[in-house]
Amino acid sequence: MSADAAGARREAVEGPVLVIGTGLIGASVGLALRRAGVDVLLSDVDDENLRLAGEAGAGRALEGDDVPVLVVVAVPPRNAPAVLAEASRRHPAATLTDVTSVKEGVIAEALSAGADPRRLVGGHPMAGREVSGSAGARKELLDDRLWVITPLAESEPEHVARVRRLAETCGAVPVEMSLAEHDAAVALVSHTPQVVSSVLAGRLADYETAYVRIAGQGLRDMTRIAASNADLWWDILTANAGQVADVLDGVIADLASTQAALRAVAAGEADGEGQVRRVLEAGRAGQALIPGKHGAPTTDFREITVQIADKPGELGRLFSAVGVAQVNLEDLRIEHVLGRPSGLVALYVQPDSADRLIEALQALSFDVRS
Amino acid sequence: MSADAAGARREAVEGPVLVIGTGLIGASVGLALRRAGVDVLLSDVDDENLRLAGEAGAGRALEGDDVPVLVVVAVPPRNAPAVLAEASRRHPAATLTDVTSVKEGVIAEALSAGADPRRLVGGHPMAGREVSGSAGARKELLDDRLWVITPLAESEPEHVARVRRLAETCGAVPVEMSLAEHDAAVALVSHTPQVVSSVLAGRLADYETAYVRIAGQGLRDMTRIAASNADLWWDILTANAGQVADVLDGVIADLASTQAALRAVAAGEADGEGQVRRVLEAGRAGQALIPGKHGAPTTDFREITVQIADKPGELGRLFSAVGVAQVNLEDLRIEHVLGRPSGLVALYVQPDSADRLIEALQALSFDVRS
Repeated sequence: MSADAAGARREAVEGPVLVIGTGLIGASVGLALRRAGVDVLLSDVDDENLRLAGEAGAGRALEGDDVPVLVVVAVPPRNAPAVLAEASRRHPAATLTDVTSVKEGVIAEALSAGADPRRLVGGHPMAGREVSGSAGARKELLDDRLWVITPLAESEPEHVARVRRLAETCGAVPVEMSLAEHDAAVALVSHTPQVVSSVLAGRLADYETAYVRIAGQGLRDMTRIAASNADLWWDILTANAGQVADVLDGVIADLASTQAALRAVAAGEADGEGQVRRVLEAGRAGQALIPGKHGAPTTDFREITVQIADKPGELGRLFSAVGVAQVNLEDLRIEHVLGRPSGLVALYVQPDSADRLIEALQALSFDVRS
Repeated sequence: MSADAAGARREAVEGPVLVIGTGLIGASVGLALRRAGVDVLLSDVDDENLRLAGEAGAGRALEGDDVPVLVVVAVPPRNAPAVLAEASRRHPAATLTDVTSVKEGVIAEALSAGADPRRLVGGHPMAGREVSGSAGARKELLDDRLWVITPLAESEPEHVARVRRLAETCGAVPVEMSLAEHDAAVALVSHTPQVVSSVLAGRLADYETAYVRIAGQGLRDMTRIAASNADLWWDILTANAGQVADVLDGVIADLASTQAALRAVAAGEADGEGQVRRVLEAGRAGQALIPGKHGAPTTDFREITVQIADKPGELGRLFSAVGVAQVNLEDLRIEHVLGRPSGLVALYVQPDSADRLIEALQALSFDVRS
């Protein structure tokens, strides 16, 4: 966890910081800032939410004579433009930022509504969607997360620097992008995968139940995010519709040419085989671009597969052994059979600690396969 | 593990069983049959492979006067038809089966080459691809796996029954399908997801590295299988090209209509919004069709999220606690941040054991979130 280290390395962002909206992200920002000793003011249209966030230690309620140095707008995307514009008027010297997941439309509307472009620096902390609601707020939520920051051409350097420092004080890693770059990036790595997953899962209903019954881990992985909240994703996809449609252009074109190649193969024309192979190889190359820890490609890790007995406590015994061997797990995966975890566990470690771990596991009679 | 239970419930398949090809599947079938006390004969064009499989306990080398009751052809798909036909001639009373992952072409070719349709009952054990090579062979490899069995119209009942018993003796669960149904089913749940994953991952190379850097767990899941072996998948996809192209028809059509809807939204036409919502909702419904343990939908499990401290041994302490509480994990997932596992672990359990587990974890001061 680098948050305390980051706090020690750099000065915390200057307060008071006003957080408007005390949901999951807003309350977590408050808790993280309080952890660093920053004075946090809270505001919410819902008095009960405000009270709960205060009791959880996310900050104190905003009062009439408070003068925030920085305002963090953490309200739903459709309310964010008006709240940013209002905050700009009410706090005429404060730096302004937000946390919405699509940036171009929100910031353009905020400017139209009167927000000051010199002080407005949009943001998007890339926190997981796995928990939601203010009850899930935690001071560690943003630790080690990327936090995209989208300065405008008019944004003054001191305001950009202050939003960067906000991210760092919360334990996150700031990354600057333009509004359009941010929206194109999330279209590529998040919104288009969601559409593809939903479409793929949606096809299953057209086939016999017996077909779906033989599904393995590949289909499970490909359709996991199709189970996501439809309302939330409808908001996101319609807010970033143009960028997502652009990425889908390429996906559809590649699928169509692959399909044509498969039809050629089925018709006995060997031409198609080269195209099928090119698609598979391009996929391998693209997958390897996704960064692992510290930006290292995940393929640099050694995979150690362990067959564990299917009885209570065996997972505990395995991970205890890893801990005792003082080996850091970079990743781990558990294979699924018939919808439940099977006895095959894949551990990913740095190459230089692989032999040590294998030896330690074998000494404890684990069935190690690699 | 239901293998021993299955062995106790039913009589093992009658031997001797001849396994031709001692790779991962062939050698694992041999080991599983030996576990049940069945006489196993082995044959392989490679003497060294044969010797190693014999030493591992998968069976004894076939000799001239052996008369197998059942022949399991476990050679690569392109050799399977000729080997099935040859086995049909050499062992004129034996039941014949294979283990190849695409069935219609292989079985049709075997029949053309002279295999006896009354004794030929194709098969496909749905074993993981996570390990490969004969060194990965294990007697438990097929435990609790589905094993698709594809009888022909001409197949005589005793031969179908014997192949079912083979699957059960190996610890697997037999499922009957026609050749075309099998190939359509694997096109839907395995081959098309592979194409979609490869195409999606292949798009990443067209964008800036900074975009890929902000990738989260969704993209990781969607592109994991894109890292699979290209040669292996080229073989599979070209062997099942027509069926995969048929499934891709529907995927491409749904993506194209979603894209058109997003373009409409981007152009300010509200019509598109309904279509986007329908796709998301169809995806949720389709995803829920994928069966969990004992056929129960995975959504029936309770999810318990635990924030663990990022220090060695914490995973071990967590899973030990689960073991001590005598709670069965139905599934588990570890969230990834910046390419490494974060401190968020999601445990999936039967609803009636959730409260007990939460209490046990809280008593040990774990930060439980649900």
